[in-house]
Amino acid sequence: MKTIKLFTPGPVDVKPEILEAMNQPMITHRSKEYSELHQRVTEKLKRLLFTENNVILSTSSASGLMEGAIRNCVKEKCLNLVCGAFGERWCRIAESNGKICEKLEVKWGDPITPDIVKDALSTGVYDAVALTHNETSTGVMNPLKEICDVVKNFDVTLMVDTVSSMAGVKIEVDKWGIDICLASVQKCFALPPGLALCSISDEALKKAETMENRGYYFDFLEIMKYHKKNQTPATPCIPLMWALDKQMDRIFEEGLENRFKRHEEMGKIIRKWAKKNFDTFAKEGYESNTVTTVTNTSNINVENMIKKLIEKGYRISNGYGKLKDATFRIAHMGDTEISDVKELLDVIDEVLNELK
Amino acid sequence: MKTIKLFTPGPVDVKPEILEAMNQPMITHRSKEYSELHQRVTEKLKRLLFTENNVILSTSSASGLMEGAIRNCVKEKCLNLVCGAFGERWCRIAESNGKICEKLEVKWGDPITPDIVKDALSTGVYDAVALTHNETSTGVMNPLKEICDVVKNFDVTLMVDTVSSMAGVKIEVDKWGIDICLASVQKCFALPPGLALCSISDEALKKAETMENRGYYFDFLEIMKYHKKNQTPATPCIPLMWALDKQMDRIFEEGLENRFKRHEEMGKIIRKWAKKNFDTFAKEGYESNTVTTVTNTSNINVENMIKKLIEKGYRISNGYGKLKDATFRIAHMGDTEISDVKELLDVIDEVLNELK
Repeated sequence: MKTIKLFTPGPVDVKPEILEAMNQPMITHRSKEYSELHQRVTEKLKRLLFTENNVILSTSSASGLMEGAIRNCVKEKCLNLVCGAFGERWCRIAESNGKICEKLEVKWGDPITPDIVKDALSTGVYDAVALTHNETSTGVMNPLKEICDVVKNFDVTLMVDTVSSMAGVKIEVDKWGIDICLASVQKCFALPPGLALCSISDEALKKAETMENRGYYFDFLEIMKYHKKNQTPATPCIPLMWALDKQMDRIFEEGLENRFKRHEEMGKIIRKWAKKNFDTFAKEGYESNTVTTVTNTSNINVENMIKKLIEKGYRISNGYGKLKDATFRIAHMGDTEISDVKELLDVIDEVLNELK
Repeated sequence: MKTIKLFTPGPVDVKPEILEAMNQPMITHRSKEYSELHQRVTEKLKRLLFTENNVILSTSSASGLMEGAIRNCVKEKCLNLVCGAFGERWCRIAESNGKICEKLEVKWGDPITPDIVKDALSTGVYDAVALTHNETSTGVMNPLKEICDVVKNFDVTLMVDTVSSMAGVKIEVDKWGIDICLASVQKCFALPPGLALCSISDEALKKAETMENRGYYFDFLEIMKYHKKNQTPATPCIPLMWALDKQMDRIFEEGLENRFKRHEEMGKIIRKWAKKNFDTFAKEGYESNTVTTVTNTSNINVENMIKKLIEKGYRISNGYGKLKDATFRIAHMGDTEISDVKELLDVIDEVLNELK
C-alpha cells in the first residue's frame, strides 16, 4: 500500500519512532510499571496545559470525555456556544443523556465573542458552559482566553473541547480558569487514535459529587479514585500510553513555545496561499493555526482535486457537513513541518493547473 | 526493562508480529482503506462467533459496551446473575445509570445453573438478563449453552460478558440465541488493550429503538448507523484494528477448534497441578479453561510467591477482591502454549520449594 501524507484534521501522520514506541512487551495495568508510566504521562500533560489540576486519561475518543463532562458537571442547564458542526456535538451529547442544553449559535465562519457569552450567562440560568476552542469545520479558533475572562465572573463550569488545538496552541488552563479541558491524541499530539485526556478542576470534581446518574465508564469520580493510584478503572490502551510518553518528550525537546510558533507559521503560510487562490472561510483575526477551511470561490470540483491529490500521495479533506464542496480543509497540525506544508501547496497548485 | 511473561487474566502476552502489525503509516477513519479494514475485521469476528448478527467495535474497554448494553436494552428491570466479583459489575453499571437491576447471587465458586435462571425469569418481571460467562475472580465458567436454552423461552434480552472466554472457548451466538455477546481484545484474543467488540441481535437493536436516554458514545443505534458504512461514529483505535485483522488470520490459521482444544488442554494441565498442590476454587465440572483460581489450601504467602515469580520473569495474579491471598489466579489464554504453561508450573514449583 502506497503511503499517503495526511493533511486531514485527524488522524494525522505519526512519526516512525512513535509507532515504534507502541511495540513493547505487554505489561498489566495493575503493575508498578504501569503506574509509573501513568504518573509520568499525566505529569507531562500537566506541564503542557500549565495546570495543577488533575489530568485524567480515557481509552475512548474525546467524544467520550465530552459525555463524561456533560454527565458529571451539568446540573440544571448547559449553555452550548456553537460556531460550527463540532460545536453542536455538545448539545447532541447532552440531549442523548436527558440533559437540558441550549444552543447559542453564531454565523458559521464567525467566532464566539466574549460579549455574547457575557449576555447569555447574565441570564443566570446556566450552571455550565460548553465550547469548542478550535472549530474544525469552519477553521475558526475562538478567542478562548477572552471568553474565559468573562466566564470567570459567573458561577458556572467551563468545559472546553480543545480536540484540534491542544498541543498545537498555547492553552493555560489554570491562569484562564478552564474547568474541563479535553482532547484526543490523534490531532496536534500526532499519535494514533484511541486515547483521550482532560484536565479537571477541583470545583468540577466537587460538583460531580453532587450529581446523580453519572454513569460508569466516564464517571469522573470513579476515574479519579483510580487516578490517585496512577491507574485507570478499566484496562487502558497501554500501547498508546507508551506512545504518548515518548511523544511528550519529543514535544518538550522541540520546546512548547517553538511548537506553538511552528503551528502559527504553518497557519500563516496556508492562509496566504488560500487568500491568493481562493479565500479563507473563517473571519479574519480568528483563523485557526491548526486547520484552514478554504472557501471554494473558484468553484472547482473538490472531490476531483482530492482524488488527484491522493494519487500523488497527499490527503486533504472536503468541507464538513453542509460546507462540503463549498469549502475544503487543510490540516497543519501535530508533527507536520513547514516544509511539508510548502510541499503540499506546490502539489495542490499542480493539481489545480491540471484541473483547469 | 526485563520482559516478564504474563499469566495474568488480561492483558496477556502479545506476539511480536501482532505488535508489528500496529506499526503502519496512519490512515484516516473516513477513508476507503479504513472501511475495507473495518469490514474485513467484522466479517472475521462473525465467523469466530458463529453469527450473522452485526458485530460492532468500540474504542473502550468491554465495560463501556456493558454500559451500552444496559442503556440500550434494559427497559424495566434487569436480572443480574452473579457468581463472583465481575458478575456484580453489571449491577454497578446499571445503578450508575439509574436502571433497576436485581442481583441473583450464588455462592462464589458455584456456577449459575439453568434452574435458578428459569425460576427467576418465571416471575415475569425482567426484560433483560445480564451474565458473566467466565468469572475471572472465581475461575468458574458458567454453562452458557444450557442457560441460553432456558432464556430462549422468555421474552428477555440476553446480554453476556464473554470478556475472558471469547476467542478461547467456543461460543455459538446464533444457535444459542445470545442477544449481546461482548468482550475486549486483551484476553483470549491476545491483543494489546484498547478495543472492545460485541455482537448484537436484530431484536436487541429493535428494542434499543424504543429506549430513551441511550447516551452518546455507547449508543448502539448511532454506532450501527456508521457500522453500515463500515465506519465508527468516533475515531477508532486504528492500530488495534490492524492488529485484530492480523490476529484473526492467525486464529483461523491455528483453526478455531484447535484453539479451543488448546485452551481445554491448558486448563486440564493447570487443574491437575493445582489439585496436587492446593485445590481449585471453582466447583468441579465448572472450571474455566482460560483462568484457574487456585485455593491457597497450604496457606502460603501469595504476595511473596508472586514477587519471587516476577524476579524469575513470570507474572500471575493474586486472588481478586475478597479472595485475595485466600486464592491466586493463573491465566492460560490467548496465544499461551501448553509448553508455556508447563514451564510456568515448573517455576512455581521451584518458588514453592524456596518458600518452604
